[in-house]
Amino acid sequence: MNILIIGAAGMIGRKLTHALLKRGEIRGRAIGKLVLADIVAPDRPDFSGDVETVAADLSQPGTAERLVASRPDLIFHLAAIVSGEAEADFEKGYRVNLDGTRALFEAVRLAGAEKPYHPRVVFTSSIVVFGEPLPDVISDTHCLTPLTSYGTQKAIGELLLADYSRKGFFDGIGIRLPTISIRPGKPNKAASGFFSSILREPLIGEEAVLPVSETVRHWFASPRAAVQFILHAAELDTGSLGQLRTLTMPGLCATVGEQIEALRRVAGDDATRLIRKEPDETIANIIAGWPQGFDAARAEALGFRAEKSFDEIIRVHIEDELENQIPERA
Amino acid sequence: MNILIIGAAGMIGRKLTHALLKRGEIRGRAIGKLVLADIVAPDRPDFSGDVETVAADLSQPGTAERLVASRPDLIFHLAAIVSGEAEADFEKGYRVNLDGTRALFEAVRLAGAEKPYHPRVVFTSSIVVFGEPLPDVISDTHCLTPLTSYGTQKAIGELLLADYSRKGFFDGIGIRLPTISIRPGKPNKAASGFFSSILREPLIGEEAVLPVSETVRHWFASPRAAVQFILHAAELDTGSLGQLRTLTMPGLCATVGEQIEALRRVAGDDATRLIRKEPDETIANIIAGWPQGFDAARAEALGFRAEKSFDEIIRVHIEDELENQIPERA
Repeated sequence: MNILIIGAAGMIGRKLTHALLKRGEIRGRAIGKLVLADIVAPDRPDFSGDVETVAADLSQPGTAERLVASRPDLIFHLAAIVSGEAEADFEKGYRVNLDGTRALFEAVRLAGAEKPYHPRVVFTSSIVVFGEPLPDVISDTHCLTPLTSYGTQKAIGELLLADYSRKGFFDGIGIRLPTISIRPGKPNKAASGFFSSILREPLIGEEAVLPVSETVRHWFASPRAAVQFILHAAELDTGSLGQLRTLTMPGLCATVGEQIEALRRVAGDDATRLIRKEPDETIANIIAGWPQGFDAARAEALGFRAEKSFDEIIRVHIEDELENQIPERA
Repeated sequence: MNILIIGAAGMIGRKLTHALLKRGEIRGRAIGKLVLADIVAPDRPDFSGDVETVAADLSQPGTAERLVASRPDLIFHLAAIVSGEAEADFEKGYRVNLDGTRALFEAVRLAGAEKPYHPRVVFTSSIVVFGEPLPDVISDTHCLTPLTSYGTQKAIGELLLADYSRKGFFDGIGIRLPTISIRPGKPNKAASGFFSSILREPLIGEEAVLPVSETVRHWFASPRAAVQFILHAAELDTGSLGQLRTLTMPGLCATVGEQIEALRRVAGDDATRLIRKEPDETIANIIAGWPQGFDAARAEALGFRAEKSFDEIIRVHIEDELENQIPERA
């Protein structure tokens, strides 16, 4: 099995690489070759097989052709300029997120025009393809009306994925990831950052800022669940997807208050006391335009599974990021 | 008022040109300059003002920049490779329908980066952006899952139109046209051709073939209504559209049987006897994947109006195409 991961240096890309190599096989075949590409060369993993790490900008002419030249059986396309940057730099966002994705799809199509080639392509989309109107529960047949350029680019990616799959150029599947919590690493300036930091920082005894009300409701999955979604998408029989090639992933619908109560149960009052309320109207307004809940019955019927409680999400973080050291209770 | 029509040589483009010049004004201002562009140079209309006819391929580098160089206040983007051709020639369809549209939007954005420029852009989309699943009545918030490359390209155009409008690069509005009936001219090989020919041919005493059952239901408007939609879209206050910048136009939901009964009422049994039933499974299967009815309440609330009966659609055809000569009754 020859695998290409584009966006392999990102948080999800690194975890996916690790999970793949730990399994050693996918779709019933041993992993023989692994190409890890990103805008900066990904770290070289410890792997006995053929592994290649590539620094490559998918939006540059020739890059996509080079990446698919070895005809990978399975392509994970995770690469994207993130939401804030795509909004600030319109041209860069479209170049990377739209032109880059299209270049990849075209490279696969043209490789198949030379001699038969029909890889599985797993594309990560996002729940921000939804934006207006926002019913309380959003189904897979709700219209895509993104409120950002990033969301627009992801929605276009979904449409292209479906059309290229319909035409038989590859076997594509898109998955809309929930907001990932708890993201490991340092606090960042993303508007969604607090959804992770109000749990992550107190778990290591540090203070975190909560800029919104505890009643704010959103849709979550752990990084581990996200990687499992991607692996399951790689293995799934796509025969039943029809033209709806992209699925909203299951997630946990929870309020900030429920996040905090879960933290209290796992790490005690000393942890929750580290959350400092500092209302920020700008962030509150951004979050107000985000979806709250989804009907992911379709994905669930196909075997995708997310966490059922924030206690579970916090335990996953402790296991995967804190060497399974449960913080001392107050 | 400086107006650019791209796709001006097509059936709707010619009727739109004619209607604009007959009015002499739009958005409260006299029409001073008119640029008519298409892949072949449109006919030069009889107009006392400044008129230019241009043969131009929007997908070629530099074309879009040249077309917007005179900074039209109002741009009608009607140009597209039609459904059958976009399906047969994948590269051409994407080049013209996606790259061409994007080139136009980019040219407007870049002109605005030089000095303030914010034209109204009217984009014609199609009901074939819908495809799967197909509820009996499709609302404006139903997902876009086109079953053709043409539908995919139109859906992407809608997303781009919304994002460029949201970013303030232009003031865009998209309208999803119903199937146009009665199309003037000769019979063609489009799968939808019979929806027009079973009325058009008998009205001039010629035979027409009906390849599907009389129970087939679809969504229609006359060419005159389509032009009125486009003109109304040019004048509408877009303030209430939000991010849903594209509207499904009102239409007449009718069965083939209802079309035939209307023909009988207007032109008698001699006309309906000219319809020869010749079932064609291929056409029947294509049509089975088409939408049947829409909830166009949003467009209606904004003042878009379609015909209320097929009798009316037939009378429009007689007035506009047959010099108002009502055929003799049997």
